[in-house]
Amino acid sequence: MAKLTSRKEDYSKWYNELVVKADLAENSRVRGCMVIKPYGFAIWEKMKDELDRKFKETGHQNAYFPLFVPKSLFEAEEKNAEGFAKECAVVTHYRLKTDPNNPQKLIVDPDAKLEEELIVRPTSEAIIWSTYKNWIQSYRDLPILINQWANVVRWEMRTRLFLRTTEFLWQEGHTAHSTKEEAIEETEKMLEVYAEFAENFMAMPVIKGIKSPSERFAGAVETYCIEAMMQDGKALQAGTSHFLGQNFAEAFDVKFTNKEGEMEYAWATSWGVSTRLMGALIMAHSDDHGLVLPPTLAPFQVVIVPIFKGEDQLRQVDEVAFEIQNKLKAKGISVKYDNDNQNKPGWKFAEYELKGVPVRIALGARDLENKTVEVARRDTLTKEVQPLEGIENYIEELLQKIQQEIYLKALNFRDSNITKVDSYDEFKKVLEEKGGFISAHWDGTEEEEEQIKEETKATIRCIPLDAETENGVSLISGKPSSKRVIFAKSY
Amino acid sequence: MAKLTSRKEDYSKWYNELVVKADLAENSRVRGCMVIKPYGFAIWEKMKDELDRKFKETGHQNAYFPLFVPKSLFEAEEKNAEGFAKECAVVTHYRLKTDPNNPQKLIVDPDAKLEEELIVRPTSEAIIWSTYKNWIQSYRDLPILINQWANVVRWEMRTRLFLRTTEFLWQEGHTAHSTKEEAIEETEKMLEVYAEFAENFMAMPVIKGIKSPSERFAGAVETYCIEAMMQDGKALQAGTSHFLGQNFAEAFDVKFTNKEGEMEYAWATSWGVSTRLMGALIMAHSDDHGLVLPPTLAPFQVVIVPIFKGEDQLRQVDEVAFEIQNKLKAKGISVKYDNDNQNKPGWKFAEYELKGVPVRIALGARDLENKTVEVARRDTLTKEVQPLEGIENYIEELLQKIQQEIYLKALNFRDSNITKVDSYDEFKKVLEEKGGFISAHWDGTEEEEEQIKEETKATIRCIPLDAETENGVSLISGKPSSKRVIFAKSY
Repeated sequence: MAKLTSRKEDYSKWYNELVVKADLAENSRVRGCMVIKPYGFAIWEKMKDELDRKFKETGHQNAYFPLFVPKSLFEAEEKNAEGFAKECAVVTHYRLKTDPNNPQKLIVDPDAKLEEELIVRPTSEAIIWSTYKNWIQSYRDLPILINQWANVVRWEMRTRLFLRTTEFLWQEGHTAHSTKEEAIEETEKMLEVYAEFAENFMAMPVIKGIKSPSERFAGAVETYCIEAMMQDGKALQAGTSHFLGQNFAEAFDVKFTNKEGEMEYAWATSWGVSTRLMGALIMAHSDDHGLVLPPTLAPFQVVIVPIFKGEDQLRQVDEVAFEIQNKLKAKGISVKYDNDNQNKPGWKFAEYELKGVPVRIALGARDLENKTVEVARRDTLTKEVQPLEGIENYIEELLQKIQQEIYLKALNFRDSNITKVDSYDEFKKVLEEKGGFISAHWDGTEEEEEQIKEETKATIRCIPLDAETENGVSLISGKPSSKRVIFAKSY
Repeated sequence: MAKLTSRKEDYSKWYNELVVKADLAENSRVRGCMVIKPYGFAIWEKMKDELDRKFKETGHQNAYFPLFVPKSLFEAEEKNAEGFAKECAVVTHYRLKTDPNNPQKLIVDPDAKLEEELIVRPTSEAIIWSTYKNWIQSYRDLPILINQWANVVRWEMRTRLFLRTTEFLWQEGHTAHSTKEEAIEETEKMLEVYAEFAENFMAMPVIKGIKSPSERFAGAVETYCIEAMMQDGKALQAGTSHFLGQNFAEAFDVKFTNKEGEMEYAWATSWGVSTRLMGALIMAHSDDHGLVLPPTLAPFQVVIVPIFKGEDQLRQVDEVAFEIQNKLKAKGISVKYDNDNQNKPGWKFAEYELKGVPVRIALGARDLENKTVEVARRDTLTKEVQPLEGIENYIEELLQKIQQEIYLKALNFRDSNITKVDSYDEFKKVLEEKGGFISAHWDGTEEEEEQIKEETKATIRCIPLDAETENGVSLISGKPSSKRVIFAKSY
């Protein structure tokens, strides 16, 4: 197996190689669209299951809305959301036919032109709010708390596996409420759900915050986000939760009779995370040997590799290995026993390191004699010999410890790469020499934000929710500011 | 609540009304595309979870392939699959722009025309086999056992909610094997998985069989299917499993080195079920009062309705109701306690009948005194008084009994509506007067099949796998036949 490019050598190349070599995903024959391979999809399924559980726990139900959005619905949306991106897949015809000049070829049938073009959904606010119009008459019909798991398409010019693809998988929550307060509460609640998921499940610390107006979702009144730091110091927006005010209700004329008997526009939120989280997961924890997966997301948490010479030894090892496997399974730990005898143990060790299996148990003739096993941790690349007796309890605790330590490592990395600066010169110096997140004062204007972005490529990632009040002056204009915001280059 | 049209009066209208009134689905603003509402989607999720469990249990993994298929891949497929339908959504452009003549309008940007048109997948053999080409070099790479949960689009002219929609949700299994035998075994295994699911989970008896050549999937060597009988006697194809031979491997040049070191084309299967199963479920069991759901698929299996006057009584009922709810939940039974005090008990009774909740428990002041509850079954519309003590055990057994009896009722209905006929006159008479499935001899030719179809609208649903050998003569040509096949009108 050829070694991965190291992160130091070329971080971007390391990422691209890792995604492909660890069998997570690959580019397809369709420009910018990926194939998510079984190993990668198994990780995504674990993310999906946990998020889905959290959504249901917080009172949401799943539903499904059409893939296609008639062009006219975007025109309605466009009125109050001018920033809306127009790069999207447009369906104009509904039939192919055999080319009369070449029976080997298919052509678009010109007689099958649609009266109105259909857009493959880039997001579903338009189709969903045009549907909610019929569902909402009275305050008794509210709240509507719906989530959808779906594929969406945005015609991206430069694409990268998981991080930015033309088609991607995501979930989009779309809720409708009778009061502004309730909608804001929902927006904040879902941000909290995402943050908890990122930290406890992906072992990835995040900063919860609010976007500056220029980084807001078109059509939102306020965009909340969670921002994570990747190992190259760049930021990755890992999830957003939008308070949409009454914008979409106005665009699609969704009014209800409130408790006082008056007609009012409904209040909306939307919130989503996508397969981009796979990119975040990879870049947050993995190393030059391959993936590092927190146990919560590993398709299998433990792999057992037998070390043997000949069939007889294998049979003896098999017996103990199956016993360990059963004991681990009884504890709810997922475990693969790889007793394939085509590949050598060394090959297997490298393979499971590449795939990020959190714990490897190696078991050979000497271990059988000594009643021990060799236990290796993927995250620290350390190994130790442990007694066979009670190994299931040891592994159970070890997996919890690994989960926690992967998180703490990422947290420590992030916190030591957030730098407070108080001048623009220092800002530029830190950004160039150290990178990471920069905590600085900002005057609240788009002008200053834009100038910094143009000159340094760093953007305001968020205004942290827990930012302390502190008197300062902004970097360029020198105007007073009461809070620091987070700047960084980002994915 | 306006009553449903009865099945006798207008079966088709009954179905359409039921789907909408029971909050399962509705038509969207996009021609032929449906919105699956939360209650309907919760049922689909239960189907999906169980099928997914069965797929994984039989060694399959999920993955995800692109929504779009370049037109040229269909040309490759077209060569060996001429029956391939060309009604599909065609993406020709990748950008909208503001109409220069009217800033309120969006138009397709003529400068953003795709070099090659993209088809929204009607099924994924083409994109998947063009991908497998890179995954398969040696027999060691086989088998590949992959399933995908996805949305697909077929431009249907006449659509009906769940039964035939332009966009629908489905799963498609696509496997690759090194031998013909293994591929056939897989095809048959997945048919068995579908049949078990239909019978044990949907409580819907099915006939397992093989399609006649004219009803085969384009590109398949053999199409296996499960056929169910709806309450109007018509057949509904509930799932198909295709043995594809080497057709797709040839079309996409997927060769591997076999154990003998020779190059060979890979052997393929594909198999799928879709949201059409929702239509089957509805039409197999429901009645003029609404849905009838087998307990396995009910979003909640039990509803508790309090009967009370005033807050004091409600508080007393609440106490016992929550106790029952907790005891049922502890047994893994899903239960809703509806103590909303806006709607009267009578309204609730009708509502939960419409929604097909298998068991309703009513609880009033007299019940509290007597330490009893009233238990109503949705499937039989019967009720009885039961002691409160041990009610959770009673309900647990009752749910099992309901599951079984719904199945037996459907089985009995189906079996009494399969008629053996031995002449074409009898065939036409039975079809017109009684309907249902007709078991008859067929000479194996497309001509006879076609004539029967044209004259009676009945098609060969399948050649049952368990058909007994029996000497007979075919209906029209009078040629000898050794097996009866199943004819019926179908959805």
